[in-house]
Amino acid sequence: MSDPFFLPVSAMEMPRYAGIPTFMRLPHVGLDDARLSEVQVGLIGVPWDSGTTNRPGPRHGPRQIRDMSSMLRAENGATHVRPFEAVKCADLGDVSPNPADIQDAMDRITRFYTRVLEAGIVPLTAGGDHLTSLPVLRAVAAKAPVGMIHFDSHTDLFHSYFNGMMYTHGTPFRRAVEEGLLDPKRVCQIGIRGSTYDQEDRDFARSEGIRVIPIEEFHARGVEDVMAEARDIVGQGETYISYDIDFIDPAFAPGTGTPEIGGPNSYQALQVVRELKGVKVVGADLVEVSPPFDSAGGTAYLGATVIFELLCIIADQLSAQA
Amino acid sequence: MSDPFFLPVSAMEMPRYAGIPTFMRLPHVGLDDARLSEVQVGLIGVPWDSGTTNRPGPRHGPRQIRDMSSMLRAENGATHVRPFEAVKCADLGDVSPNPADIQDAMDRITRFYTRVLEAGIVPLTAGGDHLTSLPVLRAVAAKAPVGMIHFDSHTDLFHSYFNGMMYTHGTPFRRAVEEGLLDPKRVCQIGIRGSTYDQEDRDFARSEGIRVIPIEEFHARGVEDVMAEARDIVGQGETYISYDIDFIDPAFAPGTGTPEIGGPNSYQALQVVRELKGVKVVGADLVEVSPPFDSAGGTAYLGATVIFELLCIIADQLSAQA
Amino acid sequence: MSDPFFLPVSAMEMPRYAGIPTFMRLPHVGLDDARLSEVQVGLIGVPWDSGTTNRPGPRHGPRQIRDMSSMLRAENGATHVRPFEAVKCADLGDVSPNPADIQDAMDRITRFYTRVLEAGIVPLTAGGDHLTSLPVLRAVAAKAPVGMIHFDSHTDLFHSYFNGMMYTHGTPFRRAVEEGLLDPKRVCQIGIRGSTYDQEDRDFARSEGIRVIPIEEFHARGVEDVMAEARDIVGQGETYISYDIDFIDPAFAPGTGTPEIGGPNSYQALQVVRELKGVKVVGADLVEVSPPFDSAGGTAYLGATVIFELLCIIADQLSAQA
Amino acid sequence: MSDPFFLPVSAMEMPRYAGIPTFMRLPHVGLDDARLSEVQVGLIGVPWDSGTTNRPGPRHGPRQIRDMSSMLRAENGATHVRPFEAVKCADLGDVSPNPADIQDAMDRITRFYTRVLEAGIVPLTAGGDHLTSLPVLRAVAAKAPVGMIHFDSHTDLFHSYFNGMMYTHGTPFRRAVEEGLLDPKRVCQIGIRGSTYDQEDRDFARSEGIRVIPIEEFHARGVEDVMAEARDIVGQGETYISYDIDFIDPAFAPGTGTPEIGGPNSYQALQVVRELKGVKVVGADLVEVSPPFDSAGGTAYLGATVIFELLCIIADQLSAQA
Amino acid sequence: MSDPFFLPVSAMEMPRYAGIPTFMRLPHVGLDDARLSEVQVGLIGVPWDSGTTNRPGPRHGPRQIRDMSSMLRAENGATHVRPFEAVKCADLGDVSPNPADIQDAMDRITRFYTRVLEAGIVPLTAGGDHLTSLPVLRAVAAKAPVGMIHFDSHTDLFHSYFNGMMYTHGTPFRRAVEEGLLDPKRVCQIGIRGSTYDQEDRDFARSEGIRVIPIEEFHARGVEDVMAEARDIVGQGETYISYDIDFIDPAFAPGTGTPEIGGPNSYQALQVVRELKGVKVVGADLVEVSPPFDSAGGTAYLGATVIFELLCIIADQLSAQA
Amino acid sequence: MSDPFFLPVSAMEMPRYAGIPTFMRLPHVGLDDARLSEVQVGLIGVPWDSGTTNRPGPRHGPRQIRDMSSMLRAENGATHVRPFEAVKCADLGDVSPNPADIQDAMDRITRFYTRVLEAGIVPLTAGGDHLTSLPVLRAVAAKAPVGMIHFDSHTDLFHSYFNGMMYTHGTPFRRAVEEGLLDPKRVCQIGIRGSTYDQEDRDFARSEGIRVIPIEEFHARGVEDVMAEARDIVGQGETYISYDIDFIDPAFAPGTGTPEIGGPNSYQALQVVRELKGVKVVGADLVEVSPPFDSAGGTAYLGATVIFELLCIIADQLSAQA
Repeated sequence: MSDPFFLPVSAMEMPRYAGIPTFMRLPHVGLDDARLSEVQVGLIGVPWDSGTTNRPGPRHGPRQIRDMSSMLRAENGATHVRPFEAVKCADLGDVSPNPADIQDAMDRITRFYTRVLEAGIVPLTAGGDHLTSLPVLRAVAAKAPVGMIHFDSHTDLFHSYFNGMMYTHGTPFRRAVEEGLLDPKRVCQIGIRGSTYDQEDRDFARSEGIRVIPIEEFHARGVEDVMAEARDIVGQGETYISYDIDFIDPAFAPGTGTPEIGGPNSYQALQVVRELKGVKVVGADLVEVSPPFDSAGGTAYLGATVIFELLCIIADQLSAQA
Repeated sequence: MSDPFFLPVSAMEMPRYAGIPTFMRLPHVGLDDARLSEVQVGLIGVPWDSGTTNRPGPRHGPRQIRDMSSMLRAENGATHVRPFEAVKCADLGDVSPNPADIQDAMDRITRFYTRVLEAGIVPLTAGGDHLTSLPVLRAVAAKAPVGMIHFDSHTDLFHSYFNGMMYTHGTPFRRAVEEGLLDPKRVCQIGIRGSTYDQEDRDFARSEGIRVIPIEEFHARGVEDVMAEARDIVGQGETYISYDIDFIDPAFAPGTGTPEIGGPNSYQALQVVRELKGVKVVGADLVEVSPPFDSAGGTAYLGATVIFELLCIIADQLSAQA
Repeated sequence: MSDPFFLPVSAMEMPRYAGIPTFMRLPHVGLDDARLSEVQVGLIGVPWDSGTTNRPGPRHGPRQIRDMSSMLRAENGATHVRPFEAVKCADLGDVSPNPADIQDAMDRITRFYTRVLEAGIVPLTAGGDHLTSLPVLRAVAAKAPVGMIHFDSHTDLFHSYFNGMMYTHGTPFRRAVEEGLLDPKRVCQIGIRGSTYDQEDRDFARSEGIRVIPIEEFHARGVEDVMAEARDIVGQGETYISYDIDFIDPAFAPGTGTPEIGGPNSYQALQVVRELKGVKVVGADLVEVSPPFDSAGGTAYLGATVIFELLCIIADQLSAQA
Repeated sequence: MSDPFFLPVSAMEMPRYAGIPTFMRLPHVGLDDARLSEVQVGLIGVPWDSGTTNRPGPRHGPRQIRDMSSMLRAENGATHVRPFEAVKCADLGDVSPNPADIQDAMDRITRFYTRVLEAGIVPLTAGGDHLTSLPVLRAVAAKAPVGMIHFDSHTDLFHSYFNGMMYTHGTPFRRAVEEGLLDPKRVCQIGIRGSTYDQEDRDFARSEGIRVIPIEEFHARGVEDVMAEARDIVGQGETYISYDIDFIDPAFAPGTGTPEIGGPNSYQALQVVRELKGVKVVGADLVEVSPPFDSAGGTAYLGATVIFELLCIIADQLSAQA
Repeated sequence: MSDPFFLPVSAMEMPRYAGIPTFMRLPHVGLDDARLSEVQVGLIGVPWDSGTTNRPGPRHGPRQIRDMSSMLRAENGATHVRPFEAVKCADLGDVSPNPADIQDAMDRITRFYTRVLEAGIVPLTAGGDHLTSLPVLRAVAAKAPVGMIHFDSHTDLFHSYFNGMMYTHGTPFRRAVEEGLLDPKRVCQIGIRGSTYDQEDRDFARSEGIRVIPIEEFHARGVEDVMAEARDIVGQGETYISYDIDFIDPAFAPGTGTPEIGGPNSYQALQVVRELKGVKVVGADLVEVSPPFDSAGGTAYLGATVIFELLCIIADQLSAQA
Repeated sequence: MSDPFFLPVSAMEMPRYAGIPTFMRLPHVGLDDARLSEVQVGLIGVPWDSGTTNRPGPRHGPRQIRDMSSMLRAENGATHVRPFEAVKCADLGDVSPNPADIQDAMDRITRFYTRVLEAGIVPLTAGGDHLTSLPVLRAVAAKAPVGMIHFDSHTDLFHSYFNGMMYTHGTPFRRAVEEGLLDPKRVCQIGIRGSTYDQEDRDFARSEGIRVIPIEEFHARGVEDVMAEARDIVGQGETYISYDIDFIDPAFAPGTGTPEIGGPNSYQALQVVRELKGVKVVGADLVEVSPPFDSAGGTAYLGATVIFELLCIIADQLSAQA
């Protein structure tokens, strides 16, 4: 039987626009809160965009995602998972970022996630730009490299920008491979598209064994076939899911800094997550929602819905283990 | 030969942005107008959203839909129906709502539609929130229950909200079945999706024999197959069409209060109406356009186009009968 | 020495866009929280707009005001009051409204405020539409009528709307006088303007002894002179402050439902509050911020700043009493 | 006693967002309507911007002004004039423009206004760009030149643009003087500002005896002093009022094509009209509202309010004559 | 080896938001510039919308497209063409339009393009409304009629508007056929949809042998099949490509004046261009991007991406010839 | 006689929306351009916001300011200065920033300005956030400290943020005093307001002799009196002007990251610059325009107009010296 403390308030009782907005109207349980040890899945905001090389804004992402996530309810309409009853979920608050120092900010993020993991909590992150994934992986993969299924229009495997800057939102997974956080043979990147400067990132992927599925292949093969391959690649090992909102076509997700034309629609955006069933997810993130480019909040609402789908996958898996 | 009085002004003569905006640039024929008796299809606005439990705004819908409907012309590009020549159409104006009293407002709507029906006019409504359909059905189905094809992301079959409130935009069709306005065996709901609190609405549908086609089934089977089933369900009897703009994916229709991710695209949104050919439509509505959430008017334009497609179905049927 | 629990986080340490947004980054202390008894000033949201007769939206006000209030800091730049050190302040959360039943909603509000007042807390409200003030006054003036300084472009003294609806955002103070909650001889309304249907509200004001200062007089006499008169009118008795954001010109506060052209500018909007120094304020509200009409949040930021000024007045007075 | 036909519906009975939007909710009386002869003041839309040399949009002005004008009520709050009771007012609809031919469009406008004037109606125009005033003046001043009080940030006295184009929104009053429609000695231009290419327009003004009051002088002397001079200049003769919305500062009126920084505020914008009391106004216009640059409608609402003030001046004068 | 002068700056070195925005960050080479003779493909802006019969705005198109085109990089992600290395490209600036005289404006455009063609440059145009194509074709097809593949929701084959106006954005290709600029047997129009006034344009198409592929056929057959037919129609002869942004569904391209519901998605929007491989393209345009209807720039970004795809086709063909 | 090369194109010949947008339609003269040595005043963009501690965006400022600056013409309407004829002006382009490294970015800026100053050019900067002023001053005051008149709502004299970060947009002038770039006795800060954390910045100002004029004093004394004092403070020595757009009230300038309620209006915003006549200006900047918070561009247009006024002051002074 569910502990009412961990159940979101129903909009049949209190309208969705009411109340201080936490993720999905969950209780806020800070890292120093006595109930932290009970939490199984922790929703965490990383309001940070120091890795952004073009149009900033993802630092405002967690707040708008929290706001729009009030629209979500108790049960997944497609899979019928009821995540908040299956596992204990909470909003763990935001990592306090340092917008003026990238290294300090990354250290703060890794420390926060290390504490979360030590408490036995699966972290589910709302970014923040994509550099966020690197300090998170430093905590998640602290003991051993993990696999990754990565939805994006960019590989984020570049070496450096602006004359040697090695930490931007275009480089996190290059660094993660170099640091031994990712097992490149168990990494699959899906939806890659858009114009490029060169093939440096693809060359790196090939040399390391990372599987890159470009959007043309995605559209030609369809969601089910592509996701079956992705599940094969990561296998039964521990796997991180990284979901850049710019994976989705910009008509559906205009609120992001580096959109690329011709992506999946919103239905496919949810389908790919539902096809993660069975993957051993040890952490996940949804990044690059940039409110200044979509003040109406549609992108944040789509992002919140993707997070809900990710949560259902994690909850389903955790409750199956129990 | 058509009576010029009932023909919209052509934009080849007067630009679309000119003139006081009525629906599709039709003449305004009020209920006390001498020419009311000539009208065959009446476009009616219901500027009302007292049934809204979340984000208000549909009270502003009719005005923005009228504005954007100036973009429409004389002939359906796909079906080649010319509705304004086939039947006499008019803008009957708005029902004067009472925003401060739900029961009084519903009474006003039912009285208005009763007069319209007594004049032998098929009503085509621009809402308003979805509670609008209930007082309209009280007039349309005053003598006998009707069937219904219902496009929506929600069933609107809930029992009550907020500790017993029985009249909201989530309950109209529960009430309509209870009041004997709908024949549940001849009701088909298409496009249902999104997270839910529970299965109460689906349980009610099952127990009453209402057919619910969730979005997963819609996407898997395709428009033609689904609509063939819908036509079978309603058969040759009198049928009401209720079209909630949130049936369509929010990238296409952001201007609505309770969007759900992963719906049909705009082409499918029109196709489903075209597939109503042959259904005996005794009334139709397009509801939940909420201008405050799409000030640019794209949602209202899409809504106006859906209304035009509905009008073509009705006009085609009426002229075939004549 | 201040209790750190009650001090907002500084943006010199954690950026303003980070963290779950409470009013002014204060701690959230619910009505059942053990620390409620320590709170001296409580910031309360009333997400409700059922009294709105025209363009809805204030139900979304508290959330946007909370968001924008992150911009505020510890010390008033003009008066040098440091409210959070002077008195213990907290965000008491939102009253859970019932958007479908006006009477039930008003009862809920009055009950919430009664509990707040019983705890010895001065309530500072973020609305909600102006009908909010009525159920709040039912709690605040439960024992004896209070005086009121009311900033607005409308008197809100009308008898009824829509054929007898007596509870709308145009009637709260008529009801409050009738119910003995306000002492009309100690009521001053400032900034009244805009077109009107008739003089019914002014006639009522005159007959009851309410002082109405129209905008023409405000602009001609200036802030200091007008406010000296207002202070004289309310004298040393208990006084409620009600501040409708549409008091301010719509260029400064576009996000509201019934704007009137030609109001005060933003500097005057703050000055009038600073001139309340010495008034015995037993409660205050800032109402009618409507986010759908200003998604950029400038109106909410202005509203949050007015609330901060009101808080400084209250804190200054309470600490002077101590 | 007023004829109810000519009275706008009250929002105390029917909310402002309801109904097909005519100017100020007045009856629509077309030029062929039997009741035209009863009308005393006619509100006319000119949806046209072919004179625009920079950012187009005023062709959409009349529709948005009609929409926002629903906010206005029966009585002027400052002057207590009740225009709809004082004189019979109607919405005469829009002149059908020709967006592809400037000369044809001007001819259409002049013909429309000639019919209006022949019916004994004082025309009150919602533009349209400022070239609109020229074909209107050709009708209004067909028999003898009139005086003019002109509120604007530009003189619109230029000779030509783009290698000899003599009909743009920068030239109407040069043409009007040349055509003998304006008596330059009885013309006063108020609020002129912004950068210029040269002094050609000012030289023309000086040589013809047109009085130009730049914004610096306006701010230094104040509304009352400036307007006393303006009234002296036009004297007791027939006078046209032309009001460009860009007279007002762009913070108050962003929805216009050629804004200039540093104009009057919204209160002054209304005051200058109120100071026209006693001027013999034979026609007036409010031009250059451009909805694409202010989709929220604040500029149109300000424009509608200026039109209401102009209407009060005209109604007051006409009823005084009666 | 590429001349660095003709290579866009990389965003790996200078961020995309920096620098004066030319098309795709190319060098600006005016018609009088010494390096004009080296240019092989010239990107040209035509900031003009005098042919617009409804909602204006495309005059602002080139500037917003230039701004958003900074997002594009060196290599096509799908076809791997590197256009800036394959051929020498430059931004040739804007044609200086005359917004007050259609004939003069068309003459200016034709003269500009004649000079471009005399310099041996393939012109790639960013409009501007669709009338732009006519004066461009007068230069491109000065010697012999060309074929055309035309993506649009309208045929633009109408005879005239507004009582005889023969030059609007609804008539360019009627005129082009009449003037012998297009070989109608080698013209294919794809994506046609939306309501119509009559069949006049289709009748003209039929009588001249123009192939019109309506959207229903497009959706039923798919991109590859339709484009194979289009390539067959134009064959190996010289062919012009005209791409109206309203070909694409308005959810993807809201920033346009005459949107029609139910068009292709953004992926198909790019696919159709990629399928032009092998067509002998002698000029191309992308028209009807209207920034006032999409200030966020998503439409312009989509338009810029279409232009990039067109450029890749042209560059690939030119370099294959070399 | 003026060199036509250095004169902006007139909008009487080419409309303002046409052409690649440089500052005020001036020629682009890069640092390596042969004509650099002729330039007397250089307009420079610094697209950079790494110093921002709250809401980012000023990196997009220069591009939007260039776009809106097309609205400006040849002559100052108030002072009649014709800057482009008085001195040779050019757009020197943008400093290429490094968004990922604050120190490297500041070095790039200082190097750029050093070259500009060595060429004898007075730099006039469009930022960028306020940290921009520090590296600019390192070039401008390389030889001797300068005085400064600083318009802002914040002193920007703080020591550090976020646990020791010494280079943010809240610290530039603290650093500049410490580095001997500013003579604090010749520094005057005008318009300071808003809530604060503490008095640390004011204490520093007092201890160094910097004159701070808070907004209350500004409003009480008026522009002329305040500016007379400011001129006295800087005297006849070399003086830098730094103008933060948030000096102006947010209703006039919403597009900025840290707005403060209650500032000057737009007319005062220009007046304060005009009152700089006679000051020996050796450089000036206008910073903190943040396009994501005002996509309509009103703030950028106001900023461009302030830059034009600054240019007129500099041009007037330089031509008087000649």
